[in-house]
Amino acid sequence: MSGYTQIRYDLDGPVALVTLHRPEKMNAFTRTMMAEIIDAMDQADGDDRVRAVVFTGTGDRAFCAGADLTPEGGGHVFSDPNPVEDLSDERVRDGGGRLTLRLFQSKKPLISACNGVAVGVGATMQLPMDMRLAADSARFGFVFARRGIVPEAASSWFLPRLVGLPTALEWCMTGRLIDAQEALAKGLVRSLHAQDALLDSAFALAREIADNTSAVSVAMTRAMLWRLSSLEHPMLAHRIDSRAIYRLSRSADAREGIASFLEKRPPAYPDTVSGQMPDFYPWWDEPDYQ
Amino acid sequence: MSGYTQIRYDLDGPVALVTLHRPEKMNAFTRTMMAEIIDAMDQADGDDRVRAVVFTGTGDRAFCAGADLTPEGGGHVFSDPNPVEDLSDERVRDGGGRLTLRLFQSKKPLISACNGVAVGVGATMQLPMDMRLAADSARFGFVFARRGIVPEAASSWFLPRLVGLPTALEWCMTGRLIDAQEALAKGLVRSLHAQDALLDSAFALAREIADNTSAVSVAMTRAMLWRLSSLEHPMLAHRIDSRAIYRLSRSADAREGIASFLEKRPPAYPDTVSGQMPDFYPWWDEPDYQ
Amino acid sequence: MSGYTQIRYDLDGPVALVTLHRPEKMNAFTRTMMAEIIDAMDQADGDDRVRAVVFTGTGDRAFCAGADLTPEGGGHVFSDPNPVEDLSDERVRDGGGRLTLRLFQSKKPLISACNGVAVGVGATMQLPMDMRLAADSARFGFVFARRGIVPEAASSWFLPRLVGLPTALEWCMTGRLIDAQEALAKGLVRSLHAQDALLDSAFALAREIADNTSAVSVAMTRAMLWRLSSLEHPMLAHRIDSRAIYRLSRSADAREGIASFLEKRPPAYPDTVSGQMPDFYPWWDEPDYQ
Repeated sequence: MSGYTQIRYDLDGPVALVTLHRPEKMNAFTRTMMAEIIDAMDQADGDDRVRAVVFTGTGDRAFCAGADLTPEGGGHVFSDPNPVEDLSDERVRDGGGRLTLRLFQSKKPLISACNGVAVGVGATMQLPMDMRLAADSARFGFVFARRGIVPEAASSWFLPRLVGLPTALEWCMTGRLIDAQEALAKGLVRSLHAQDALLDSAFALAREIADNTSAVSVAMTRAMLWRLSSLEHPMLAHRIDSRAIYRLSRSADAREGIASFLEKRPPAYPDTVSGQMPDFYPWWDEPDYQ
Repeated sequence: MSGYTQIRYDLDGPVALVTLHRPEKMNAFTRTMMAEIIDAMDQADGDDRVRAVVFTGTGDRAFCAGADLTPEGGGHVFSDPNPVEDLSDERVRDGGGRLTLRLFQSKKPLISACNGVAVGVGATMQLPMDMRLAADSARFGFVFARRGIVPEAASSWFLPRLVGLPTALEWCMTGRLIDAQEALAKGLVRSLHAQDALLDSAFALAREIADNTSAVSVAMTRAMLWRLSSLEHPMLAHRIDSRAIYRLSRSADAREGIASFLEKRPPAYPDTVSGQMPDFYPWWDEPDYQ
Repeated sequence: MSGYTQIRYDLDGPVALVTLHRPEKMNAFTRTMMAEIIDAMDQADGDDRVRAVVFTGTGDRAFCAGADLTPEGGGHVFSDPNPVEDLSDERVRDGGGRLTLRLFQSKKPLISACNGVAVGVGATMQLPMDMRLAADSARFGFVFARRGIVPEAASSWFLPRLVGLPTALEWCMTGRLIDAQEALAKGLVRSLHAQDALLDSAFALAREIADNTSAVSVAMTRAMLWRLSSLEHPMLAHRIDSRAIYRLSRSADAREGIASFLEKRPPAYPDTVSGQMPDFYPWWDEPDYQ
C-alpha cells in the first residue's frame, strides 16, 4: 500500500510512529483507517529496523473519537439496505476486531501515546497494545451501552485483562467517560504526561527497549505473555518456554547478551526477527473466524 | 413463588431491591433463602421494568453472617445421617454455588450494598455481582479454612478474577477477617460509604445505568464480559462481538442511542430484554453439573 | 536425598525454612539447587508437622542472582557441544520450570522472604509461591530480553496472574530492574520489611495459618484457587467445591472448626494431609510435557 490517507507512518531511528490523521474528524475511525493501520503493522513487523511502534493521534484534542458514523466513514452499516442473515458470513466481521487481532499478532512492542479523547474503537484499539501512556487531558469511553450496541474489537477479552473484571464491568455497563486520573488509578494507562511531553515519553520507553534488549527475545516474549497467560495450566507454558530457552540460549543474541552484561557495555545484538526467530515459531493453532 | 419469608423484594422505579431478611439471625443463609433469591432473580430477569438489582441485608450489623448451621438453617448437613457416596449425585451440589451460578446468568446488572459483616457464603454470594459498595463498617471473611472446609460457591473461580490471585490466596489461606479499607484497597469493593448513605449510593449507580444505557446492550455486555474474558483467545470474543455489533447496530436502540447523542438529549430506548435480545443469544453451551 | 549442599532445610515448629545457600555466588541457581529444592518440597509435603514453607537466601545481598552461568553451575547449556534437535526431548526441559511446576503442586502454603536481589530464575521461582514478602532493599529483574533469551519457568503463565498483563509486559519487554517499592505497588510482593525483620514477618504469617486453619482445608484451598481460577467457567469450580464441601463438612476438622469457633478457643484440628485428604484428590488430569 503506497501513500496513506488517514494515518501517517514515520520512522525515527528504531521507532515507527503511527499517527491517526483525520484532524477535521477528531481522527474518527473508518474502514480505510483500519486497512491503513493493518498495512502499517505489516510494514513494521517486516522491517528489522523497527524495534517498537508508537501510536498517537494528530492534534491535542483527540486520539480517536470512535467510529465515523457518517457515510464516508462507513457509517452506512447503521442503515445497510441489504444486511446479511448468515452471521458467520465474513461481511459480518467487526472492523475494530480485525484491527485488534492484527495488533495482537504484532512481533514488535506497541506503545500508545493517547493524546486526548479516545472513545469507542478509539479506546478499544489501544487494548492489545503493550504499554499505554496518556496526556493529563485524555479521556476514555467504553460508551457502547450508551449507543445501543456492545463492546467490540474483542474488548470483552482484552479489557478485563488490563484493568480487572470489576472495573471493566462498571466502565462498560455505565458507558461513562473515564478521565486520565481514573485510567491511571485502575491501570488502563501506565503513566500520565503533560501534552507536550507525551510523545517524548513514549519514545523514551521505546528506546529503552531498543537499546537494551534482543529483538528476537522481545518478539518471543510478546507472543508468550499474551498467549500463554490465558492457558489453563502452567505446563502449557513450560512446554513452550523450555523450547525457547533451549534454542535461544544457543543463539548469537544470548552470547552477546551475556558478554555485554559481563563486560558492562551496551549490547549489539546480531539476530533479527526476519531471520532468527526459532523454528517452532509460531507454535499456535489460531482459531479461525467461523 | 408467592410471599418470601427470608428475603424482601421491592421495586423502586427501575431498580429491584433484594434484602436478605433474617434480622434475628444476622441474615444467615439457608436453603430457603437460596431458593428465594433464585426466585427473585427469575422475577428481575423477566421484568422489563427492572434495569438493575441491588442486594443488601436488613439491619446495620450484617449483610449475611454465613450459612446458618442450626438445624432450621440446613445445618443438618454437618450431621447428615445418610450421606451419599456418589459425589456426582445431585444432592451433593453446594447451595452457595447454585446461587452464584444463577447470579452469573443474570441479564441485569447486580449491585451489592454490603451493609455489615459478610462471612462465608455471605461474602462469596457477592462475587458474581458486577459492582460492590460497602459500608465503612463492613467486614468480609473467607473463613472456610478456619472451619475445616474450603471456599465454596465457585469462589475459587470468582475471587481471583476480582482481587487477583495473590490476595485471594492470602485471604483464603489465613481465613482472617478483612475490614472495609482493605477490601477497597484490594478491589473487592469499588467504594465505601457511611452506613446511612450506602443504599442511596447503590441506587444512584443503578439509576446511572438505567438512565443512560440500552437494556439489551447491558444484558449483552454482562454476558460478554463475564464469559468471553475467560476464553483462551481474543478470536473467540471477536466471533461473538462481530455478530452482536452487526445485529445491534441495526436495532431501534442503536438508532435511538445515536440520535439522542447527536441531539444531546436523554435517550428513550425502545427495545427490551424480553423481546429484542439478538437471535444468537445465548450463544454458549453451558457445562453441566456431572 | 541426605545432606543438601546448596540449600539449607530447617524445621521451626510448624514452619519449614528453605534457605538458598551459595553465599559466595549470590545464591545463584544450579541444577543441583533445583534438585535439592524439589527434594525439600517432597519432605515438606510429606511431613504433617509442616504447615507452611518459607523461602529465603543466605546473606543480605541476594535472594538468588539467577542461573549460574559458569560450568559448575550448569552454564554449559550455553556452550553445549551436542544439542538435541528434537525439541520434545526430555533433555530440553527448562530447569526453572521443573522447579516452579513442583512448587505449583505443593500441598503447603509457600511464603517467600525475598532478602535481596532476585534476578532471572531467582525472581521467577517466587511466582508460584502464595505470598511474597521482601526486604526494603530487594530488587527483582525479569531480565531475559537483556540476555537474548525469554521468560522461563512458566513465568509467562504465572507473572500476569500476579501483577496483571500490562505490568508483566513492561517488566519483561524492558528487562529493567524493579525496586522493592515498585514491586509492592504492582502487587508482586504483599509487604516490605526492614532486612532484620523480614524473616520474623514471614514466620508470623506462616504461624497465623498454622495456628488458625485446618491443614487439609489449606491444601485443598491451595489446589482449588491456583487450578480452578484458570478454567473457563464457574461450573467447573462448582463441580469440585461441591464435592469438597460435601466431604469436608462431614470431617473431624469441620466439627473442630465449628466447635472451637462457638467455644471461642483456639482450634486443634485432628486431620492430616497425609491421611485425610478427600478421596477425589487430586481431581485433575495434569497435562504432560510432550
